[in-house]
Amino acid sequence: MSNAPGPAAPSGPSDEEIAALDAHWRAANYLAVGQIYLMDNPLLTRPLAREDIKPRLLGHWGTSPGLNLVYTHLNRVIRSRGVQGLCVWGPGHGGPAVLANSWLEGSYSETYPDVGRDAEGMGLLFKQFSFPGGVPSHVAPETPGSIHEGGELGYALTHAYGAALDHPELLVACVIGDGEAETGPLAASWHSNKFLDPVHDGAVLPVLHLNGYKIANPTVLARLPETELDALLRGYGHDPLYVGGDDPIGVHRAMVAAMDRAVDRIRELQAAARTGGDTGRPHWPMIVLRTPKGWTGPLEVDGVPVEGTWRAHQVPLPGVRDNEDHLRQLEEWMRSYRPEELFDASGRPGPQVLSCVPEGDARLGSTPYANGGLLLRDLPIPPLDDHAVEVGKPGTVLHEPTRVLGGLLEAVMAATAERRDFRVVGPDETASNRLDALYGATAKAWQERILPTDEHLARDGRVMEVLSEHLCQGWLEGYLLTGRHGLFSCYEAFAHIVDSMVNQHIKWLRTSRRLVWRRPIASLNYLLTSHVWRQDHNGFSHQDPGFVDHILNKSPEVVRVYLPPDANTLLSVADHALRSRDYVNVIVAGKQPSFDWLTLDQARAHCARGAGVWEWAGTEDGSREPDVVLACAGDVPTLETLAAADLLRRHLPELAVRVVNVVDVARLLPREEHPHGMPDSEYDAVFTRNTPVIFAYHGYPWLIHRLAYRRAGHAQLHVRGYKEEGTTTTPFDMVVRNDLDRYRLVMDVIDRVPGLGVRAVAVRQAMADVRTRHHAWIREHGTDLPEVADWTWSG
Amino acid sequence: MSNAPGPAAPSGPSDEEIAALDAHWRAANYLAVGQIYLMDNPLLTRPLAREDIKPRLLGHWGTSPGLNLVYTHLNRVIRSRGVQGLCVWGPGHGGPAVLANSWLEGSYSETYPDVGRDAEGMGLLFKQFSFPGGVPSHVAPETPGSIHEGGELGYALTHAYGAALDHPELLVACVIGDGEAETGPLAASWHSNKFLDPVHDGAVLPVLHLNGYKIANPTVLARLPETELDALLRGYGHDPLYVGGDDPIGVHRAMVAAMDRAVDRIRELQAAARTGGDTGRPHWPMIVLRTPKGWTGPLEVDGVPVEGTWRAHQVPLPGVRDNEDHLRQLEEWMRSYRPEELFDASGRPGPQVLSCVPEGDARLGSTPYANGGLLLRDLPIPPLDDHAVEVGKPGTVLHEPTRVLGGLLEAVMAATAERRDFRVVGPDETASNRLDALYGATAKAWQERILPTDEHLARDGRVMEVLSEHLCQGWLEGYLLTGRHGLFSCYEAFAHIVDSMVNQHIKWLRTSRRLVWRRPIASLNYLLTSHVWRQDHNGFSHQDPGFVDHILNKSPEVVRVYLPPDANTLLSVADHALRSRDYVNVIVAGKQPSFDWLTLDQARAHCARGAGVWEWAGTEDGSREPDVVLACAGDVPTLETLAAADLLRRHLPELAVRVVNVVDVARLLPREEHPHGMPDSEYDAVFTRNTPVIFAYHGYPWLIHRLAYRRAGHAQLHVRGYKEEGTTTTPFDMVVRNDLDRYRLVMDVIDRVPGLGVRAVAVRQAMADVRTRHHAWIREHGTDLPEVADWTWSG
Repeated sequence: MSNAPGPAAPSGPSDEEIAALDAHWRAANYLAVGQIYLMDNPLLTRPLAREDIKPRLLGHWGTSPGLNLVYTHLNRVIRSRGVQGLCVWGPGHGGPAVLANSWLEGSYSETYPDVGRDAEGMGLLFKQFSFPGGVPSHVAPETPGSIHEGGELGYALTHAYGAALDHPELLVACVIGDGEAETGPLAASWHSNKFLDPVHDGAVLPVLHLNGYKIANPTVLARLPETELDALLRGYGHDPLYVGGDDPIGVHRAMVAAMDRAVDRIRELQAAARTGGDTGRPHWPMIVLRTPKGWTGPLEVDGVPVEGTWRAHQVPLPGVRDNEDHLRQLEEWMRSYRPEELFDASGRPGPQVLSCVPEGDARLGSTPYANGGLLLRDLPIPPLDDHAVEVGKPGTVLHEPTRVLGGLLEAVMAATAERRDFRVVGPDETASNRLDALYGATAKAWQERILPTDEHLARDGRVMEVLSEHLCQGWLEGYLLTGRHGLFSCYEAFAHIVDSMVNQHIKWLRTSRRLVWRRPIASLNYLLTSHVWRQDHNGFSHQDPGFVDHILNKSPEVVRVYLPPDANTLLSVADHALRSRDYVNVIVAGKQPSFDWLTLDQARAHCARGAGVWEWAGTEDGSREPDVVLACAGDVPTLETLAAADLLRRHLPELAVRVVNVVDVARLLPREEHPHGMPDSEYDAVFTRNTPVIFAYHGYPWLIHRLAYRRAGHAQLHVRGYKEEGTTTTPFDMVVRNDLDRYRLVMDVIDRVPGLGVRAVAVRQAMADVRTRHHAWIREHGTDLPEVADWTWSG
Repeated sequence: MSNAPGPAAPSGPSDEEIAALDAHWRAANYLAVGQIYLMDNPLLTRPLAREDIKPRLLGHWGTSPGLNLVYTHLNRVIRSRGVQGLCVWGPGHGGPAVLANSWLEGSYSETYPDVGRDAEGMGLLFKQFSFPGGVPSHVAPETPGSIHEGGELGYALTHAYGAALDHPELLVACVIGDGEAETGPLAASWHSNKFLDPVHDGAVLPVLHLNGYKIANPTVLARLPETELDALLRGYGHDPLYVGGDDPIGVHRAMVAAMDRAVDRIRELQAAARTGGDTGRPHWPMIVLRTPKGWTGPLEVDGVPVEGTWRAHQVPLPGVRDNEDHLRQLEEWMRSYRPEELFDASGRPGPQVLSCVPEGDARLGSTPYANGGLLLRDLPIPPLDDHAVEVGKPGTVLHEPTRVLGGLLEAVMAATAERRDFRVVGPDETASNRLDALYGATAKAWQERILPTDEHLARDGRVMEVLSEHLCQGWLEGYLLTGRHGLFSCYEAFAHIVDSMVNQHIKWLRTSRRLVWRRPIASLNYLLTSHVWRQDHNGFSHQDPGFVDHILNKSPEVVRVYLPPDANTLLSVADHALRSRDYVNVIVAGKQPSFDWLTLDQARAHCARGAGVWEWAGTEDGSREPDVVLACAGDVPTLETLAAADLLRRHLPELAVRVVNVVDVARLLPREEHPHGMPDSEYDAVFTRNTPVIFAYHGYPWLIHRLAYRRAGHAQLHVRGYKEEGTTTTPFDMVVRNDLDRYRLVMDVIDRVPGLGVRAVAVRQAMADVRTRHHAWIREHGTDLPEVADWTWSG
């Protein structure tokens, strides 16, 4: 919202204003019930009959009246107070409520012209809900005005904060159900206010909706003694405003007062920070709304209480199709909203209902903030040449790839200093992951006290560090969904913490891509580093390469996985990812010093192909198929593969070895399974149809089989990778433990290439001897064999 | 702890007592530093030399002095106040501290006799730390007295609560680092006290350690204004006791007072609940400990502050091997603890150091609570016959499998009413998952107000429901690790929320199994229900079968996956899982009415094999190999496969069809990859080597390829499964969208079995026509085709 004071709050709402708000709320409630039950007779122009009722009753009534109340009152402040608003509906199961409101305000019909704002459209709105070929029961990508699915609970408040960052004009309301409030991610999210800059960011207004129950149980927060709840919310840094009751008019009056107070207070706090130079962390207002679950629904059904209990959670009258009493009760319930006062004969909402509704893009269902692609600008990425490393002879000079990337990210951060539409998030690992060059262009966001010994902390920093992968993920999702760019840098093993969150984001993107009105947003980019092979001191708990497997189970339209083998390939891949749209890009790259293999131009060409032969590394002469293909994906496997190629060149020079490096693992998939999949002809040209392939892979070896099982050469494919043999040890010992080391790869070649003769037997024994020597050496010295530590490419 | 009052707190500690505590603390600090740096000269009997220093310095100093302080003071209350204690060390990175203390108290040497409590043993203790072939840098299964790894942060407090449940005599201390406190799971865990029964459960004493910094940043909680922190902790329901400072003697005195006060208060609260009948939720004490990060370590290194900053997080003097100043500084640092006062000439800790240390099993490193297998009793599981369903003709009678299981679980719950060593946890879904028979034997644990409209809530319930998969998982892990049994029932899609937690538990079990002193514990059993195929009203966000894929990436010694196709097979599998040890068992089973296929005896035999031919369902005559194998795994795929077999019998009666059902998917793996893997001979006998296999699988189809790619018949294996085509729709439409439906399976057979002739072409067209009819029907009626809805097995 603007930091100008804006129109002052009126002294109190008139009876007319309250009546109008109530009319809007009743209309929304009516429409929510209609969606759950009706497939015909939307305006109740005749008595409800069995045929009007859907055959399968699906939906969540319990949370809907509360969401309708919040939507109604947000409409009021948006319209009357000049607020720029967006709302995150945490209780996404209350799809009928949000759909009802966007239909009332006209956004729905503008988005879906076949569902008009009239009786016929109302009939379609009702029938399509939770109906095959219709719309989902939850708030979803299909829902105008939403950036948040809400099917999986826990992420509402992080999404709201992500949306508010770098949108100083915006007020993001966020309805938090008391069920969702029990989840870990939501519980952690309250502290997001320690990262929200009152100068450069917008405001978040949490509305904690205590309707008392989740599916089958009371909720923890709703049953807390009031003093304890108040202490908790103040402990979270908020200044709570309480609204509650079951008398609609009283609740409307209290809600008007609380909303006005919240808007006033937010404007005061922002003005103080923006003009007065007061940079302390404000105690932001929030609203606690305590109303009955399933409010205004059936009080009792079949003799047991429903309104105000967990029984109101889903469909309060389940038997309407077969039970005359239920059917009559449903009709009474719907008529209790007095639809004849709310809609005209043609089904259009009347002027009283619409009097609180804002206009145009200010409507919650039409705001461009909820369709972030409308706001998105291309990211100014400087030329990679300024950041690339010089590569003369491959495999002789070491760089830390993520440190090189840090330089590029710093330049992007600097180029967006005014625009403020790029952020890097990470769970306290940005420096550990060698991206600290970023602090040359920005700081880490921090609104608490800053001590003289602190470094790189500032109110307006655009690096976000908190020890919660959930918050990092949620903030970034909210930021991207509202039209900005970003990167999440994370220890590889702990990306699993957000497995379920990224599932939902991928599902969101998969569905959004099929909706023409949803404009493409920037991709969600992961940099997974501090990876499985280099967790030297953290050991087994930090060793897990399975996030890639998880991602590759998901919609191929959306998921992309890259394993750049060195610094320049990492630059090229990151550049591509940062420019892309509507993807989830997973980049796995090490932070430890590792060899450079390709110049920037070579890297660009190699990354564009995604997988290809490294001619310089092999010993083919082109006259025939190679005797063996050494394939690799990932930085450590590439090192071991090149070292194995080196050993083969020296010990078995007559062997024709081809070296293949894979950056984009989806290239191994058949083309019909993934848009990046190679045609069989290309696969066969690279990997051959009959030659043994020894594939050194970064993660679980069976992933490669799962990708390539349909290929002609699959029976000759032998994959080495991580097989859960981890501990605290040296880098080379890790590859030995998992049979991915250079000596083992050479042994694999000798075991699989037929007809190598007696010389090869001796070489195989020599390799086995080095491995034995390794085991003894490392236990005595605690370091790797000198011949491993000092190895460079000699080809 | 006992609810008898016990010895009274002394009026205040004597100077001697404080000096002794300080000596113990200094000794532990000395040993922690030694582990990080030294490979020789442990007692500093000669000046430190470069050769004494490890070649790679790995470890976390920053948190260690705080952990040592807590260990020291827990020793005191255990010894002097008769407390039965267990401690969960959240900052598990502080491995050196916990190892130091268990060595001091003698537990370490009793567990690992080669590391004696003398100078030689001290040398080994130092060298082995973070050394190849040695011990991990974190608190880990190898660490005596631990039930918690702590490498991945977030789960300390849930583990502590899980350990305290049903152990009324136990006090579980839990050190929570201020870094870990930022995570979602930890933030949610504070409310675990709403589920802890002061009568039947023990106590949890959280010790929030504010040392101010995580890896590279200040922490949120350490920088909160004190009033806000206090409000937060009171909002969590605690009565905080504050201890802080950087003067050791002052902190010791304050810690003695706080620990005594906490123990007194816990005893009062328990006595009030246990004898006075006061069943309100107590405001349990907790301790806030504010001491400098890296306390007593180097104040400055190379001119920059270290102690009390984030720079103390890992190794404060990184250059000791090459930098004389650092080496000298290290020696000064170690000598500042005055080791000559702490250890005698032979390296044994002196009597002053040991004066606070408890005896025998009371020691934190020797308590049987941290080696739960010692306490574990077999679960009394009643005969399955009492709970099995009658099955006459297969495929004609419907049951809800999880409801049938609920009967068995109720019986187990009843049989453990006195023992109280079995719990069922779930995220508010126990009734939704049809396990509500449990409430015949127990209630849901709840310590808040209980209203007249509430059902099945009680202080002492052993069903745990909270809307947080993280809490469910953490509580259950803590419960199992301390020697009890349990089951986690969860919506299938949302098991991904705990992907990373279960990784750590599997790693724990994999390592524990290799330690002879760790006794086997009860398996962690998941019931995944409300699965991908039957999320009719929740839609796409609730559709994800990938948890099985995640699990099967993990150590084969530990992971087991079962997909029982009906009620009796579910009983048999659950019985097996509940009796097993040291596994993670994942059972995927539906809750919707579905056909019974096998009698209990048939189910037992089938589950014992894990996969096998259902002769009654096929049309082989035994004279030759079948023309096609229809394989299936999972309840919905089994239904579709049997319906396809039915269609084939009617339409192509001459075709020899074999039906194979797979319950235990690991049977598909080669025997050398998983202990359940079939020998090739058995696989070939079941699936054949050359016959087309149409495999209908519950989850992502490529999982089956990843398991079976080495089998002879793999090229003939065609798998159908879920391919991320989800939405809100009917059950049958879901299988059609994903090409798993009976008609598609018949078409697959016709497409793949050679030489079927013109008759088959017509059948294929008929099948395609039904699918077309389906699409039109469902959009009009919203229900499935009558021939699908009414189908029963006709074989």
